[in-house]
Amino acid sequence: MRVKIHVTLKTGVLDPQGKAVQHALGALGFTGITDIRQGKFIEMELSETNDVVAHKTVTNMCEKLLANTVIENYEIEIS
Amino acid sequence: MRVKIHVTLKTGVLDPQGKAVQHALGALGFTGITDIRQGKFIEMELSETNDVVAHKTVTNMCEKLLANTVIENYEIEIS
Repeated sequence: MRVKIHVTLKTGVLDPQGKAVQHALGALGFTGITDIRQGKFIEMELSETNDVVAHKTVTNMCEKLLANTVIENYEIEIS
Repeated sequence: MRVKIHVTLKTGVLDPQGKAVQHALGALGFTGITDIRQGKFIEMELSETNDVVAHKTVTNMCEKLLANTVIENYEIEIS
């Protein structure tokens, strides 16, 4: 089973990495960017075949390791 | 206009970050993970309103800065 996880900074949390990218794009001549936020994208292959169990396991992984829930949100997509 | 970009390592390229995450999850008792790949997720707000122009601009950004096309793939999603 393939799982996709997006970990993004919560709204209001400063994103220096995004700001750096925005600045660098500006220096390359790309204008008209009003906002950039950079997050993590994790793709996982699980041997689990039950959707519900997999979702629960991955939620647990996010809470414990993959995301810092104080400043980050996560989104799980199972396919 | 909101643009989402996924930058992922090409198949066959070693992913030490993914391996580290897999190892850490194993140490936390999560088993049954056959593969993990970690990539970048970039969300962008553009003032451009034309889909085609925006796609072309963002492709250009990916080629020039956001992705290392030797080892990474990118995927652009405009919404």
